Amino acid sequence: MRSRLNIGLFGFGVVGTGLYEVLNKSKLLEARITKIVVKDPTKKRGLPAEAFLYDKDAILKDDSINVVVELINDSEAAYAIVLEALKNGKHVVSANKKLIAEHLEELIATAKENNVSFLYEAAVGGSIPIIRNLEEYYNNDSLSSVQGIVNGTTNYILTQSNHGVAYEEALAKAQELGFAEIDPTLDVDGFDSKYKLVLLIKHAFGLVVEPKDVFNYGIRNIKPQDVKYAGEKGYRIKLFSRAEKLGNDIVGFVAPHFVKSDHFAYQVDNEFNAVVVEALFSDKQLFIGKGAGSYPTASAVLSDISALQFDYQYEYRKSIGNENVNFQDDFYLKAYVGSQFIEAINTIPFYRVDEVYQSETYNYQTGWVRFEDVKELDLNQLPDLSFIVLPDAFVAANQPEKLKSERIQYLTEFEL
Amino acid sequence: MRSRLNIGLFGFGVVGTGLYEVLNKSKLLEARITKIVVKDPTKKRGLPAEAFLYDKDAILKDDSINVVVELINDSEAAYAIVLEALKNGKHVVSANKKLIAEHLEELIATAKENNVSFLYEAAVGGSIPIIRNLEEYYNNDSLSSVQGIVNGTTNYILTQSNHGVAYEEALAKAQELGFAEIDPTLDVDGFDSKYKLVLLIKHAFGLVVEPKDVFNYGIRNIKPQDVKYAGEKGYRIKLFSRAEKLGNDIVGFVAPHFVKSDHFAYQVDNEFNAVVVEALFSDKQLFIGKGAGSYPTASAVLSDISALQFDYQYEYRKSIGNENVNFQDDFYLKAYVGSQFIEAINTIPFYRVDEVYQSETYNYQTGWVRFEDVKELDLNQLPDLSFIVLPDAFVAANQPEKLKSERIQYLTEFEL
Repeated sequence: MRSRLNIGLFGFGVVGTGLYEVLNKSKLLEARITKIVVKDPTKKRGLPAEAFLYDKDAILKDDSINVVVELINDSEAAYAIVLEALKNGKHVVSANKKLIAEHLEELIATAKENNVSFLYEAAVGGSIPIIRNLEEYYNNDSLSSVQGIVNGTTNYILTQSNHGVAYEEALAKAQELGFAEIDPTLDVDGFDSKYKLVLLIKHAFGLVVEPKDVFNYGIRNIKPQDVKYAGEKGYRIKLFSRAEKLGNDIVGFVAPHFVKSDHFAYQVDNEFNAVVVEALFSDKQLFIGKGAGSYPTASAVLSDISALQFDYQYEYRKSIGNENVNFQDDFYLKAYVGSQFIEAINTIPFYRVDEVYQSETYNYQTGWVRFEDVKELDLNQLPDLSFIVLPDAFVAANQPEKLKSERIQYLTEFEL
Repeated sequence: MRSRLNIGLFGFGVVGTGLYEVLNKSKLLEARITKIVVKDPTKKRGLPAEAFLYDKDAILKDDSINVVVELINDSEAAYAIVLEALKNGKHVVSANKKLIAEHLEELIATAKENNVSFLYEAAVGGSIPIIRNLEEYYNNDSLSSVQGIVNGTTNYILTQSNHGVAYEEALAKAQELGFAEIDPTLDVDGFDSKYKLVLLIKHAFGLVVEPKDVFNYGIRNIKPQDVKYAGEKGYRIKLFSRAEKLGNDIVGFVAPHFVKSDHFAYQVDNEFNAVVVEALFSDKQLFIGKGAGSYPTASAVLSDISALQFDYQYEYRKSIGNENVNFQDDFYLKAYVGSQFIEAINTIPFYRVDEVYQSETYNYQTGWVRFEDVKELDLNQLPDLSFIVLPDAFVAANQPEKLKSERIQYLTEFEL
């Protein structure tokens, strides 16, 4: 029943190198990398120069190759490769979350039209088999939320922050350890987490959401004073990708959150990733594993290749019958807004204020804000402001009475 | 591609009732319970009496039924039902770990001969999809260990113990909350954990091990003084089912362990289950979910039924090519042995002693013991003795030099 897999590999970085070693050494898999295409002929690699080709058609137009594994960094080039591979009737395994999130609908349709598989477990949660589990296992249980730490780089930096290390220093260390990707902006501003969230939303709730419609705010602006606040309240700061049912609709975004010590994420440190799936019958399920690095990624790619031996395809069963479910932004959440400048805090309108703190060097305010108001702002570009979600359930827009007041309050300077 | 499933259900306890409600209400599944067979005609149930049948042949000999879901407590009766159902060409879903562990080889062979599926995700780890993940996902990664808290009852009791509640009181509360099964001995003496371990070993390492060959020691004998020791050292006590590679072979057993605060299990409390899978590429993966109760079990049964729609079968791929791998007992581990009586402690021969503590009311000794020596004893039947594994890696029998001394030391009474 196993299909013999002849693999064409694009890219030969750490993941590709690891994959090559495993496929050559292991006899478990009826799979072999027969061609490798890379971009730069001058780069030193772990195999002799004659092992490499430089023309993508060497793989894409080779009928003996039935699987394309795409592991290159350039997501636009990757898009062209993946699309053509699918059109040429080849199964595709990719770890490129940006490419997949931005072209999800087209790629799924193309794979279906050509009756091939398009698998991307390595694109979300590193070694955690979250896509497969959402796809297979929670198929008939009523899912209420998916929430996770899905970016190892920012989790590593935040772990350092929680121990008092400055942001720049922590970022440099993450890059040195190989946790940080080529462009740190994608990580630290929450874009990478957003692309992954888009994939989670598809497999958890069956919705295709455009990355541009999902709010992402990262960790670049978090100040030592915010960490101090967290410490005083017994919180830690974690960057969450989260999506959940609110009424009949789905809400979701990427933002830093304060978490209490009894929260699953409190202990998930360094490059580890964690995803919690909440469902009616199975209740909360937590998956934890290494999210960054070549081995966890190679492990996930390998699992996809293995599944191809058995003609595995994602079925996207949750996309059936949810035509009336929308992705929406009209709800309230409880947040902390901190800044050295009171006018910066006033950028964010509050619907209820719970706490106000002012001092000569730092100020903060906590309370309820309307997500639609926040979403209009490009918070990543407001370096003076820290916006961190507090651990309270969302309030749907049609229940504003839960907030006791609809009056927008602004902070005014105290006499110091 | 979906098969229409007509289900014959055996047993109508909390899990069966929940399952019936879901299958009747949900339109996601092309599955319907068409007959229910129960044992006791006089028992009050959530459906009118005419919904029930009392003769197992009503299901087993009905050709219109293609799936048998077995949810009864009597594992011998369940064995007869499952075996005949498989022989009659029906797929079987069961949550009965004792039945499955004791007849694993025969049941797998019978399912294969009759070209039907035999699925049992609900038998291990409640709602955690651990069997499916071992089966599907870690297929090509070199697995080094599987370790978990797979019994919610004992984890609930131990959580209470760690908070100072006496054993009997905690057990009574667990039963009241429905976490404890009909015969608590199966739980508290580690039998339930052992049956589950047998299934984990099969799916993780491809080995069929007889339950009688696996050592199980539970939590019945743990004393407040042992909990006090744990507290002083920063440990908590957890009951582990564990199996791991040691050289080319597999070792495994069920016993209470001390865990440090940085161990995955430290925070896994109450009825929660947790399993860690360690593998070469994916490193450590942790799965946490609710292990006891009707909903988590129903959720897992439902996932198996759902998989049957797509003709899913376990492939037991790890059983191929491991003919030279043995389950063996010849290794050293580090342990704590406590008792009111010094002669009780001396029941266990030590190969190296690290700590000795004596007082008027309690004594303990820590150090290295040979697992073969421990396995000979029925520790569950030695109420004066506490045996708890300390957090150190095993030492293979062919490396005794790591223990520095092979001399067996016994505790002698100090002058008090």
